[in-house]
Amino acid sequence: MTEIPASDVDSVAFNDPAYRQAIVDLLGAIAYGELAAFERLVEDAKLATDLHDKLALGKMAKVQFDHIEPLLDRINALGVDPALAMQPFVASFDDFHAKTAPRDWLEGLIKAYVGDQLAADFYTEIAAFLDAGTRKLIVDSLDDAGHANFVVARVTQAIEDDPRVAGRLALWGRRLMGEALSQAQRVAVERDSLAALLAGGVDRPGLDLAALTRMFTRLTEGHAQRMETLGLAS
Amino acid sequence: MTEIPASDVDSVAFNDPAYRQAIVDLLGAIAYGELAAFERLVEDAKLATDLHDKLALGKMAKVQFDHIEPLLDRINALGVDPALAMQPFVASFDDFHAKTAPRDWLEGLIKAYVGDQLAADFYTEIAAFLDAGTRKLIVDSLDDAGHANFVVARVTQAIEDDPRVAGRLALWGRRLMGEALSQAQRVAVERDSLAALLAGGVDRPGLDLAALTRMFTRLTEGHAQRMETLGLAS
Repeated sequence: MTEIPASDVDSVAFNDPAYRQAIVDLLGAIAYGELAAFERLVEDAKLATDLHDKLALGKMAKVQFDHIEPLLDRINALGVDPALAMQPFVASFDDFHAKTAPRDWLEGLIKAYVGDQLAADFYTEIAAFLDAGTRKLIVDSLDDAGHANFVVARVTQAIEDDPRVAGRLALWGRRLMGEALSQAQRVAVERDSLAALLAGGVDRPGLDLAALTRMFTRLTEGHAQRMETLGLAS
Repeated sequence: MTEIPASDVDSVAFNDPAYRQAIVDLLGAIAYGELAAFERLVEDAKLATDLHDKLALGKMAKVQFDHIEPLLDRINALGVDPALAMQPFVASFDDFHAKTAPRDWLEGLIKAYVGDQLAADFYTEIAAFLDAGTRKLIVDSLDDAGHANFVVARVTQAIEDDPRVAGRLALWGRRLMGEALSQAQRVAVERDSLAALLAGGVDRPGLDLAALTRMFTRLTEGHAQRMETLGLAS
């Protein structure tokens, strides 16, 4: 268990019960997202025909799992049972994964890379509006320990070996982005607290509609850039 | 990467090419065993209906995965590609898991506990015949970080709640032991190096048939004891 400095949950922002609830929701969502990603990465590692590849994907999964515990510790420190905090987000993440089950090893790799990085960009955007302690906790939980490089190397090699796969994989990347956006929207609609978090509060800046649009533009651009890194159209 | 003291692979025992090969085989078998166990634990965690349980099994899986890297580092230090060292054992472990796929959460828990501890006992017995560096590496890789306690608590609670499950779970424990022994036998037959390791060498003590029988008796007794701890007949 990571020791949590009292100051981190004693930030004045936590005096606002709505903020407190929103942070519990956000950390619960991120924690369950990491748990679901962990399970799927291990599941997808079975598609690997090579033990090196299986180990590399297993290591990505392990890094995801290591991120969960500090989030759960913080939720505990905020006086909430982590399982309860995660529960509201189970359906959305499980749906996302059910609708984006990769059919082969390459689709699994792209999903690991694109999904993980998109989630990281999204949470980093939100973290900018939070108290310093929560912001650092979230940003630390998004470190992928450089494993993305492995995916880029494998996918670009596969496209070089057989350029015909690029079309199918580009479609796959678009589908991942579409499903992710649709689940994110669902969460925002279902959890008022998170929408309110983005709207800001008396003592916290928030996002107006124009700023929110710019945020989604940045997320889309980040995705497009990653697809390009992989040698795929977005 | 763990730094490996040169002395660990410079032990005089490694001057014997047969010993070297046997250690590579043994470490490859343990590493793939941990990798397969990791995958199955995560798979079985899906049977959990409760997020606490899912997290607890996920943590057991993560501990298994953390054990793999030092074994791979050592295989590398012995000049062998870890994937090649693991390859000969893929079929046996995969067969074991295919034949012992748990039908529910309780069977999954028992398999995690019984299988993991049986493997640990077996490797600990073998480690006693090895050079000090390899022995320590193996023993360290078997530390379950106290997660067995979680399984014992869950299973005994389930039997208390519904004593009728005990009969089915006792049969399940016997099947696990039977399948494990049959796969261990297969490995011993297929890999001469490992059988030779147990037989000893000029400068290393070995096991004669009587000692080997005593070893299997100890393994069986350990299994029976664990079944008893779970409240199950063996």
